[in-house]
Amino acid sequence: MRESFKVVLTEKEMPREWYNIQADLPHPVPPPIAKDGKPVTPEMLAPVFPMNLIEQEVSTKRWIRIPEAVLEILAIWRPTPLYRARRLEAALKTPAKIFYKNEGFSPPGSHKPNTAVAQAYYNRQFGIKRLTTETGAGQWGSALAMACKLIGLECKVYMVRISFEQKPFRKMMMRAWGAECVASPTSTTEAGRAVLAQDPNTPGSLAIAISEAIEDAVTSKDTRYSLGSVLNHVLLHQTIIGLETQKQFKKLGTYPDIVIGCVGGGSNFAGMAFPFLYDKINGKNLRVVAVEPAGCPTLTRGPFAYDSGDVAMMTPLLPMHTLGHTFVPAPIHAGGLRYHGMAPLVSHVLREGLIEAVAIPQLECFRAGVLFAQTEGFIPAPETSHAIAMTIREAERAREEGKEKVIVMNWSGHGLMDLSGYDAFLDGKLSDCLLSDEDLARSLKSMEGLPKPPNLG
Amino acid sequence: MRESFKVVLTEKEMPREWYNIQADLPHPVPPPIAKDGKPVTPEMLAPVFPMNLIEQEVSTKRWIRIPEAVLEILAIWRPTPLYRARRLEAALKTPAKIFYKNEGFSPPGSHKPNTAVAQAYYNRQFGIKRLTTETGAGQWGSALAMACKLIGLECKVYMVRISFEQKPFRKMMMRAWGAECVASPTSTTEAGRAVLAQDPNTPGSLAIAISEAIEDAVTSKDTRYSLGSVLNHVLLHQTIIGLETQKQFKKLGTYPDIVIGCVGGGSNFAGMAFPFLYDKINGKNLRVVAVEPAGCPTLTRGPFAYDSGDVAMMTPLLPMHTLGHTFVPAPIHAGGLRYHGMAPLVSHVLREGLIEAVAIPQLECFRAGVLFAQTEGFIPAPETSHAIAMTIREAERAREEGKEKVIVMNWSGHGLMDLSGYDAFLDGKLSDCLLSDEDLARSLKSMEGLPKPPNLG
Repeated sequence: MRESFKVVLTEKEMPREWYNIQADLPHPVPPPIAKDGKPVTPEMLAPVFPMNLIEQEVSTKRWIRIPEAVLEILAIWRPTPLYRARRLEAALKTPAKIFYKNEGFSPPGSHKPNTAVAQAYYNRQFGIKRLTTETGAGQWGSALAMACKLIGLECKVYMVRISFEQKPFRKMMMRAWGAECVASPTSTTEAGRAVLAQDPNTPGSLAIAISEAIEDAVTSKDTRYSLGSVLNHVLLHQTIIGLETQKQFKKLGTYPDIVIGCVGGGSNFAGMAFPFLYDKINGKNLRVVAVEPAGCPTLTRGPFAYDSGDVAMMTPLLPMHTLGHTFVPAPIHAGGLRYHGMAPLVSHVLREGLIEAVAIPQLECFRAGVLFAQTEGFIPAPETSHAIAMTIREAERAREEGKEKVIVMNWSGHGLMDLSGYDAFLDGKLSDCLLSDEDLARSLKSMEGLPKPPNLG
Repeated sequence: MRESFKVVLTEKEMPREWYNIQADLPHPVPPPIAKDGKPVTPEMLAPVFPMNLIEQEVSTKRWIRIPEAVLEILAIWRPTPLYRARRLEAALKTPAKIFYKNEGFSPPGSHKPNTAVAQAYYNRQFGIKRLTTETGAGQWGSALAMACKLIGLECKVYMVRISFEQKPFRKMMMRAWGAECVASPTSTTEAGRAVLAQDPNTPGSLAIAISEAIEDAVTSKDTRYSLGSVLNHVLLHQTIIGLETQKQFKKLGTYPDIVIGCVGGGSNFAGMAFPFLYDKINGKNLRVVAVEPAGCPTLTRGPFAYDSGDVAMMTPLLPMHTLGHTFVPAPIHAGGLRYHGMAPLVSHVLREGLIEAVAIPQLECFRAGVLFAQTEGFIPAPETSHAIAMTIREAERAREEGKEKVIVMNWSGHGLMDLSGYDAFLDGKLSDCLLSDEDLARSLKSMEGLPKPPNLG
């Protein structure tokens, strides 16, 4: 057999600590604030999250130990292999070396369980017996369902009603893992009843589902709420991806010139990118690129501002790139990237000039996803195809420039639950769903009157 | 971290040869015959299969080299890990050590690509440009679609119409890998047109789809037909599963007391079992158990006889356990196990007393599948849940007997494309679909007048 196409770590080589980029930021990230402009205190968050996770959220300690019990469950599918995409390189006739970190081997099929397991563990340590969350298409809900079952917590997932009805398979997955999954809005919360009273046939929304999940958590015994992206501790738990990747490059005796990940809330990108940013902050020369959908261009067209995480303004105001909390993303198939905001830490490192951001239209991403599946075998999630599309752009540029660049992307999950998107693409039924200036301006108006974050430095 | 839960091989440790059990059978397996009772010659099969695969089909050489190009593609997901199911053991309070070989990591999610890649390779070596096949629920069709794309062949899949319409996701998977997938019967073959003339609204059947795929292969330029189970060369290609497992047990310094696999056509079971039967034939003391659905109990209730592989009697007569070629299996969710016949080699080793066979009802299997998902994380395919159910029976027996047995099962694939089965089970909508004596007797009548295979030795 010729040279190996993948780099595998043993379980013993799994990272034992997460990397916290808050220890190394040139300027600290601004704090979340309440609507009155005052900082949010840990005590204000205590009814929603357990205190041990709140402490992680605000920690500036560089390395945070991964509990043994968390490592043991992550080891079901971790360490994940780093692949050299030789067949894709050959199809592109590029001198670039393309690597991808395959996060699709977890039981639900994406990177999401990396934080779901950790969050379930810390909640249980804190004496919590039950977690609530919201989910759109269901990737996050299914990851948390599995994590809760393996850790020993009950789990209730409020799933946006239209997805609950149109995409029943993730709901079935949650059920197989013993979680309760309900169509939101429900009649069991005040928030849900209020919406239903106005419109009994509402398709639901992520904002409504968040409201219901938080209300359930703060009003139920031994219950807390769990979020699958955006927050600092969620990004922290994902850094195992980049830390493993660095070990794998060390084994290869090489180092990437370009690190690429797709961004929705920011967690899979941060998981891959932040450990490399540690190197960059310490003098290493590399580019780090966040790729978002042109239909939901938060980093490239949204201002850095204080904005709410949800339409109903239930959450604190977060300092982030945002399209405005009333923004309704176009119905692109990359459901996990359809979010008006962005993790404050990802927004902040863009402001700091540590990363670049690119928006790519949907059709180019699906073309990239199909080329990947037909050369490398694995069918990527529509979200992941954004990272692939950017990787292909860079590989083609390397060909034009005749440069042997090393590119690595985070392959965040498989597309086996998203095949109808591929079908619609191959039938020529999809469009790019670009965002018009008018729609953007209208949405940004929702932030008028909110406090502004301070300038850098 | 405590002791590792999985045993991983490096790519360099992948087996370089397949194991051919025909070299070691106490009595040779009877040959396939034509309806006139005369043996089928390689020349008679040449319009259907390439000669290099026909040679493999009849070879009695013990070890057959795996081509480098095949190994390179298998290495996308191989070697697969051998897991110790410690959480399942704990849930069962058993002293048994339970291991499972996870074949669910391949891009289509099952063991099927192990032979699909090899078959595509040998066809291409022989100058073939295009493969045809049939598929029921789509596991095999999607595996061959991927293999053809990666090897560089065209692929056309005749998918049973009712599955094509009711289970569209596997069809979409085939499309993503560039294969043409059509609902069978079609109007493009004589076999298809004949059926449509009689009943334009026919739901189709595997037998019709086989007829169409073979007709297409023998009447098209540079085209051959490919089968996903039953035949000797298909089972041969799957032995990489058991050969890897043996290396993994060697690393552990232990050896299984019981080897378990589910059986439909027989290929995943044989892939795990045959390398262990080599040890058994050479004096090792172990049990090897084939598990079939009680709704389609080929090995446990069907006689060993010469029977056709399809309803239309297009195929040669094969010496096998069979429920009769007119048998219509109950609509159990383990679609891959709904076959009236059984691989001649698997049937033969049962006759030889080398393996045991057990039939388990559907509900016990789904219960086992849910327990597995909720302890080990991965959601098994309904087919795989049969192996799990038997593993649980043996683990419980070990508990009762107070014995520390070592059990290994072939975990043939994940159930992410079969979640509606779990949903129906959790809703209490499934039944055991047992086979009545009357239905069996009626079906067995279809074999009246066919030649009988000789007795053993």
